Amino acid sequence: MPSRIIDSPRNVDLSDYDPDDTDGVKHKEADALQAKLEAKLQRQQELLYGAGKQSVLVVLQGMDTAGKDGTIKHVMNGVNPAGCHVWNFKVPTPEELAHDFLWRVHQRTPANGMMAIFNRSHYEDVLVVRVHNLVPKEVWHERYDLINNFEHLLAHNNTIIFKFFLHISKDEQRQRLLAREDDADKAWKLSVADWQERKYWDDYQAAYADALGKCGTHWAPWYIVPANKKWYRNLFILQTLTERLASFEKDWSAELEERGKQELAALHAANVHDET
Amino acid sequence: MPSRIIDSPRNVDLSDYDPDDTDGVKHKEADALQAKLEAKLQRQQELLYGAGKQSVLVVLQGMDTAGKDGTIKHVMNGVNPAGCHVWNFKVPTPEELAHDFLWRVHQRTPANGMMAIFNRSHYEDVLVVRVHNLVPKEVWHERYDLINNFEHLLAHNNTIIFKFFLHISKDEQRQRLLAREDDADKAWKLSVADWQERKYWDDYQAAYADALGKCGTHWAPWYIVPANKKWYRNLFILQTLTERLASFEKDWSAELEERGKQELAALHAANVHDET
Repeated sequence: MPSRIIDSPRNVDLSDYDPDDTDGVKHKEADALQAKLEAKLQRQQELLYGAGKQSVLVVLQGMDTAGKDGTIKHVMNGVNPAGCHVWNFKVPTPEELAHDFLWRVHQRTPANGMMAIFNRSHYEDVLVVRVHNLVPKEVWHERYDLINNFEHLLAHNNTIIFKFFLHISKDEQRQRLLAREDDADKAWKLSVADWQERKYWDDYQAAYADALGKCGTHWAPWYIVPANKKWYRNLFILQTLTERLASFEKDWSAELEERGKQELAALHAANVHDET
Repeated sequence: MPSRIIDSPRNVDLSDYDPDDTDGVKHKEADALQAKLEAKLQRQQELLYGAGKQSVLVVLQGMDTAGKDGTIKHVMNGVNPAGCHVWNFKVPTPEELAHDFLWRVHQRTPANGMMAIFNRSHYEDVLVVRVHNLVPKEVWHERYDLINNFEHLLAHNNTIIFKFFLHISKDEQRQRLLAREDDADKAWKLSVADWQERKYWDDYQAAYADALGKCGTHWAPWYIVPANKKWYRNLFILQTLTERLASFEKDWSAELEERGKQELAALHAANVHDET
């Protein structure tokens, strides 16, 4: 199997990747691992927030039912909402459509110290837009380069970018759609459109392969997440986030320590303590 | 002790309220209670989000170190970040100052289905602004009515509004500021300004008393939270949120159930299931 990390342009064939994979991790180990990684991410987010030198952008993409909402709910469980914004990108409004396709996402990129999670993103403009011919090929075809340049701008401003493709099989999607029909608590999430979009499965897979292959860069890598098993999807994402953020921890801690010393020195110099 | 809920205009004297109060709840009971209430809030947020008929606005105000950040971290622990935005209102930017004082907060009010938490808010414009004479009295004095009208507009659009004043004692603030100096992990949060602002303690208490007394309305009540004990502050806020939101649960569930039925009927009518 080729690497699940796409960090330079290459041809991607999604059938090379098994959505059922768990990399040898056993389900019974998952809870303990998840708790450990959640605690790690929580600590890293605190440092990121305090230091205020970098920001983190997490892009979630995947077919309907691939688990974007579930990932946010379960992976971001311990994350402090004060330092994390989640943005859903749905069908563009008339005002959004009257601008370039990156205009609306640029407004939602994270400020220094913050995390932002994009539930769908600017990639829809080379996915649904391509599959349904919403703009001519020469327009969407230009967008891969435009996206790479845009993400380079963000990375240049110290945004750490993770792009996760939640990879499920066509059969798994079918099971999940049918399961919603049997669960009264989830029936409101059903939509005729989900089944209609499913007819374009192969077109979407091809569009995803291009998006991943053309927009996997070292400043904004794509990760192909085996997502048929929800518990492993969550673990894989937590593992990926915490491993890459670990390389910044020392720097962030040092920044906070230094700032603490400066504040203490300023306090003593100002002699502002009162006794009441 | 007068009621801790200010839901109609009256004179408020903060010295009537004991910041150490725990209403007879024992510390050892706190963890179990907190877990129960967190689960309740989590479920209510899911219903709020799914139904999309109301929104929730939580305003947090209090003196420095009163626990606004801690409340967000601990009370909103189980809340799904996809349905909750936290906004910090700091010193206004030049662009914000070039507009009316409600302009910047209005942009951050929650959409249907969402929760928004304001860490500080438009109330700063009758608090720090008043204490430091940043505008003439005739300007800030008008603002109580303007705030009531603004919050009425939000409530009219089905925003459920909670305004929490985190009430700590002057001595408790002193202890918390000193504790930061002893904790290397927290020293970066120190600021000379915190001690300088403390000199205006009595002016702030008077300004808060007016803000609470003049802007406590039945559509946007103030809650005076005993906040010296952090564990009770968290419990009090969770209890207040879940009790008031409970009255909407039945309606939200019914909405989701009805929508589920409609989607199922549409699915069967469209006959879109495939077999592959």
